[in-house]
Amino acid sequence: MTHKKKYTLAQLAELLDAKLTGDGQCEITGLATLQNAKSGQLSFLSNPSYAGQLKSCQASAILIDEKFLDSCPGYKLVTSSPYVAFAKATQLFDNSPIPPKGIHDSASVDTSAVLGKNVSIGPNAVIAANVSLGDDVVIAAGCYVGESVSLGNACKLHGNVTIYHRVVLGNNVEVHSGSVIGADGFGFAFDGRQSVKIHQLGGVKIGDNVEIGAGTTIDRGALEDTEIGNGVKIDNQVQIGHNCKIGEHSIICGCTGIAGSVTIGKYCIMGGGSGVVGHVTIADKVQVSAMSLVSQSIPEPGMYSTGTIQSKTSVWKRNAIRFQQLDSIAKRLKEIENSTDKK
Amino acid sequence: MTHKKKYTLAQLAELLDAKLTGDGQCEITGLATLQNAKSGQLSFLSNPSYAGQLKSCQASAILIDEKFLDSCPGYKLVTSSPYVAFAKATQLFDNSPIPPKGIHDSASVDTSAVLGKNVSIGPNAVIAANVSLGDDVVIAAGCYVGESVSLGNACKLHGNVTIYHRVVLGNNVEVHSGSVIGADGFGFAFDGRQSVKIHQLGGVKIGDNVEIGAGTTIDRGALEDTEIGNGVKIDNQVQIGHNCKIGEHSIICGCTGIAGSVTIGKYCIMGGGSGVVGHVTIADKVQVSAMSLVSQSIPEPGMYSTGTIQSKTSVWKRNAIRFQQLDSIAKRLKEIENSTDKK
Amino acid sequence: MTHKKKYTLAQLAELLDAKLTGDGQCEITGLATLQNAKSGQLSFLSNPSYAGQLKSCQASAILIDEKFLDSCPGYKLVTSSPYVAFAKATQLFDNSPIPPKGIHDSASVDTSAVLGKNVSIGPNAVIAANVSLGDDVVIAAGCYVGESVSLGNACKLHGNVTIYHRVVLGNNVEVHSGSVIGADGFGFAFDGRQSVKIHQLGGVKIGDNVEIGAGTTIDRGALEDTEIGNGVKIDNQVQIGHNCKIGEHSIICGCTGIAGSVTIGKYCIMGGGSGVVGHVTIADKVQVSAMSLVSQSIPEPGMYSTGTIQSKTSVWKRNAIRFQQLDSIAKRLKEIENSTDKK
Repeated sequence: MTHKKKYTLAQLAELLDAKLTGDGQCEITGLATLQNAKSGQLSFLSNPSYAGQLKSCQASAILIDEKFLDSCPGYKLVTSSPYVAFAKATQLFDNSPIPPKGIHDSASVDTSAVLGKNVSIGPNAVIAANVSLGDDVVIAAGCYVGESVSLGNACKLHGNVTIYHRVVLGNNVEVHSGSVIGADGFGFAFDGRQSVKIHQLGGVKIGDNVEIGAGTTIDRGALEDTEIGNGVKIDNQVQIGHNCKIGEHSIICGCTGIAGSVTIGKYCIMGGGSGVVGHVTIADKVQVSAMSLVSQSIPEPGMYSTGTIQSKTSVWKRNAIRFQQLDSIAKRLKEIENSTDKK
Repeated sequence: MTHKKKYTLAQLAELLDAKLTGDGQCEITGLATLQNAKSGQLSFLSNPSYAGQLKSCQASAILIDEKFLDSCPGYKLVTSSPYVAFAKATQLFDNSPIPPKGIHDSASVDTSAVLGKNVSIGPNAVIAANVSLGDDVVIAAGCYVGESVSLGNACKLHGNVTIYHRVVLGNNVEVHSGSVIGADGFGFAFDGRQSVKIHQLGGVKIGDNVEIGAGTTIDRGALEDTEIGNGVKIDNQVQIGHNCKIGEHSIICGCTGIAGSVTIGKYCIMGGGSGVVGHVTIADKVQVSAMSLVSQSIPEPGMYSTGTIQSKTSVWKRNAIRFQQLDSIAKRLKEIENSTDKK
Repeated sequence: MTHKKKYTLAQLAELLDAKLTGDGQCEITGLATLQNAKSGQLSFLSNPSYAGQLKSCQASAILIDEKFLDSCPGYKLVTSSPYVAFAKATQLFDNSPIPPKGIHDSASVDTSAVLGKNVSIGPNAVIAANVSLGDDVVIAAGCYVGESVSLGNACKLHGNVTIYHRVVLGNNVEVHSGSVIGADGFGFAFDGRQSVKIHQLGGVKIGDNVEIGAGTTIDRGALEDTEIGNGVKIDNQVQIGHNCKIGEHSIICGCTGIAGSVTIGKYCIMGGGSGVVGHVTIADKVQVSAMSLVSQSIPEPGMYSTGTIQSKTSVWKRNAIRFQQLDSIAKRLKEIENSTDKK
């Protein structure tokens, strides 16, 4: 892949707030891993276990922490956080298409909508009544933005996103394709014969600097709003039920399912495919491992897990059958201990 | 949030089939929880564990069961099912936008389509050949309704729903955004070298009063129809494989995955993130807990589970490693028991 | 369901490469299971456990292996692979609508796009700049095909599919509705206060003869491409993270979540709802059972599992509580063994 952008090492040192060791005029045209980098590219060492690759790396320069200086031949951009500097570099070399400003002919924009400056609205996008869009908002092809939705500045909806009525997004919120924000929460009252729908009268309120992956769904609240805090990052195919509150800067990895009325603290990390049952509260700085189920509130920070560890199915089956006898095993063990104690 | 609708307590007593204790002229403008209700709002007590909040509740009136009358100051709407009455009240106060009748200029409606009375077809919606829509059907922006699809009266497709050819929906079926009904079931025959596609010749048949959440997929049958019974409620991001039969009034919570040719009985509840392997049959009134896997048929009603309970990862890991030794542990225990018996 | 296509048994014997026993002029108008077949239909016996249904089967002919000849009255199409022959027959009787050639008036096709012969572009589909479409490509209603995307011959995108920029599909790739290919991988560097986005500069490269179900998401790579090999079949609601490599002819069942930088070998089968943590490598011909989590690399072929087996929740709970004591149970057992040894 060829990137169109080009920077000298001197420029990069300044932009990435790093100290240059090497030729400031050396031109960098792209980024690559230590293993695959070629001349003209910038690489980085973040995970120390890859330090062995430094010597053979073909990159023209490497983002690196001071402590690895001696193991690294060639030009270096020295920084205390090579991974963060690399993240900033990806922004410099970003090669995604820039959407054209203005409203595409085929878009349907209600006359009551209020649009900020430099807005881009793509083909077949639909903007309903009383929508408010901040400056530099991008609404790509096929999006639906419902009645009275408000998007802050620099929000970006990729193609085919659906936002229901009265959802509020802060500034700089990015939503990937296929995601749906503000559909009805799943609420029914059973009358003994059938389920009576509880209409969902709340909305969804999303803070600033939130990213929402593809195919993710965030339901509107039953009476009050579902809330996503500032800086929260949500991966693909995540489901967030009605009335949830997700604390600032938490990370929700792909395929996670969060039932209704769950409160998650700040700086949490929900591992991929994890789940949380309804009405549970999770403290700040909790990490839940992949495919684990949180079925009780977690009042303290730390890492939590459920499940078992992979093994060959033949071996697993024998152990899984024994799991069914575990209470009996524990009781029988206790019995033996008791009889032994007596002797 | 301000609701535009307003009812007197006398009106609500009649509409919700409740007995009023208090001023029939008192005006109610919205709904709220016991904890957050303000003057002018109606609240409800359903879960007895919240009864302690009755005394300090600021609501103008409360939907309540007779047995809590004494603990509740202020006006009351007395009913034997406060939660069902609350559900009905949410319909009265529903504040979602009412879609305009008629066909939007930008919609593509095939001339062979047969439309009922008062149909609403939104911007960029596509209605293919030989589609039949009942009265009061709403097809929101960006939906695709395939060839020979039939929708009963009062069906509602929210924005960006896709319905493949020859899918049949009964009356009053609501489908939320991003959902896909009638895509090909996942069927291949392996010829020793590669997978040969089994074209899916069946359809999908959905009963009356079904609700389908956002981002849910229901596949068409291989030879016959996939069937969803009357009154079934399906949450977001649920996957239902080809040839499944879901019995009437069952509830499928979010992120549940049901493989092909599964039969689920009536009045079942599948917990969030649960799974069912293919060709399994589940009786009526079975409940499966969150993230549990059904890998064998369940012939009797009751609650079923798999998995383990959350703990700190450090503790979990020690136990999970021991799970791998469980068969050995059971055998060694048996050996000790045998040797003890001999003595 | 009535199929419009009709074949004589003589024609089917030739088309399916089977040996006919019976009347070559007998007309077949559709396919059905042994149990539900009627006169005029073709059925098949693949799973020997259904052999008992042969005698009462009403089908006009049956696709069958030689070894069941004697148990099968009536006409037969004899083949060594009845299931593969059945798969081929489903293609003959495929009754899905044939999309009209040409570009629908409401589609937006950038003037720089290069289109092959016999292309079909549906209503409201959007084809961005520098897209290349092979011959016989079908892009159904509401699809978005991003900048510089390349689709080989005979690719088919069902309605409301989203393909981000610079994604490459080989020949004969079918993508079902609601799926999203090429959204940003989930990458952030934490700077101690907030998450800094790692812009995803790679793309997605998909081989030939790949099928991708509905509501599936495949993320673009961080620096290099995410790669899906030839012949891979992916079910609905699967999530494939950035930088993954899925080997040829592997099968990924519904609701599976594969984290970033995972390498899966050839001819693998990932069971429904299974998961793989990041940076793991899985050998060829590995099978992972439903809802199992792969948290470590798998260097050898075979079947792998995690989890426990379903039981009544009351029973499960007692055993699950004992799981929390498993390390202690194992230690106490060892102690008893030691004390017994000493005697």
